Amino acid sequence: MKQSVHKVEISTRGQGLYEFTSTIDEWVVRQKIQTGLLTVFCRHTSASLLIQENADPTVRRDIKAYFDHLAPEDGPYIHTAEGPDDMPAHLKTALTQVQLSIPVINGNLVLGTWQGVYLFEHRTHPHRREIVLHLIGDERGNR
Amino acid sequence: MKQSVHKVEISTRGQGLYEFTSTIDEWVVRQKIQTGLLTVFCRHTSASLLIQENADPTVRRDIKAYFDHLAPEDGPYIHTAEGPDDMPAHLKTALTQVQLSIPVINGNLVLGTWQGVYLFEHRTHPHRREIVLHLIGDERGNR
Amino acid sequence: MKQSVHKVEISTRGQGLYEFTSTIDEWVVRQKIQTGLLTVFCRHTSASLLIQENADPTVRRDIKAYFDHLAPEDGPYIHTAEGPDDMPAHLKTALTQVQLSIPVINGNLVLGTWQGVYLFEHRTHPHRREIVLHLIGDERGNR
Repeated sequence: MKQSVHKVEISTRGQGLYEFTSTIDEWVVRQKIQTGLLTVFCRHTSASLLIQENADPTVRRDIKAYFDHLAPEDGPYIHTAEGPDDMPAHLKTALTQVQLSIPVINGNLVLGTWQGVYLFEHRTHPHRREIVLHLIGDERGNR
Repeated sequence: MKQSVHKVEISTRGQGLYEFTSTIDEWVVRQKIQTGLLTVFCRHTSASLLIQENADPTVRRDIKAYFDHLAPEDGPYIHTAEGPDDMPAHLKTALTQVQLSIPVINGNLVLGTWQGVYLFEHRTHPHRREIVLHLIGDERGNR
Repeated sequence: MKQSVHKVEISTRGQGLYEFTSTIDEWVVRQKIQTGLLTVFCRHTSASLLIQENADPTVRRDIKAYFDHLAPEDGPYIHTAEGPDDMPAHLKTALTQVQLSIPVINGNLVLGTWQGVYLFEHRTHPHRREIVLHLIGDERGNR
């Protein structure tokens, strides 16, 4: 049994969904773990993680629009000092994920055919987002 | 330390919450892990996972009705090609979970008295849903 | 590779966010794991977990107010026998987290600078909430 850890930096240019499935995938394959568990952790409170459909891009546009509507910039917030997009960013993060764990079988993530892993940026200005990857598993196949 | 993996298929007959706690429970007990971590992963973007009260069935009816209201079929979506229930299904998945990890102590999941594990089906037509179980742990007791 | 498990009890005095980052942090440090994965699991369906900003307290006030608005007490619920705060409690739990996993690197949780771990109590009366901590990892440093 062994572990590997890795930091991924994602530069965002405004609100929206940024796919990084292939970055994760390639790193996992390089670790030569046959059976294991990958954990993806986002070190922020105004950006989050989401597994969503990676086929039709209109799904991502609808997701973004939906969360903008669900946690609007003009809500009755007390915390407004960091800009109108800050408090909605915290709420969108609370409503989605900060962490995802994905099993690895036969050396590959068990993501479904249409599942992509996304960083969901909730701030309007460019940011550098840090994602930590943690993998634990075995170089031998599972039983 | 050892690992086990398993695939569970759940046939759904329309939207709603399908409990599969006992399926998970029985599989975990058969692996003879005393201390460990079980991960449940749903390989879909229009069905999700939820841990909820398994006592009063009206809780599940209210949960379903609430999410139907929160992500309605007649929303202003661009992505409508796959039917009126498809985009709401993606949104409901984003608002709930794709993955759950539950510690195992003394050979059993540490679920609370009223906690059940559910597949939350968001599509109206019947589907076959694939859930991956991953268990890592030790056959000896914890310290 | 080793594992440790621990139960944490949190006494709540009404709805709101209760931080317990330092409790987790100190326990993790005592386990002397250099590289690993911590899982935090909440054994309830009317209280949940959240990673949020631990700097400005107005963020927590806005989060609480937002979820009260999103899942109001006067909703059209069938399940009302356990009080007006019970069904909203289940919905708020469904919308947030029951479980969080956080990687450990160099003996410390990889939480970001502003990330705190909170129990989100959704009931108005005082409760004793049980949180299970599970840590798996290695006493040696990661590669």
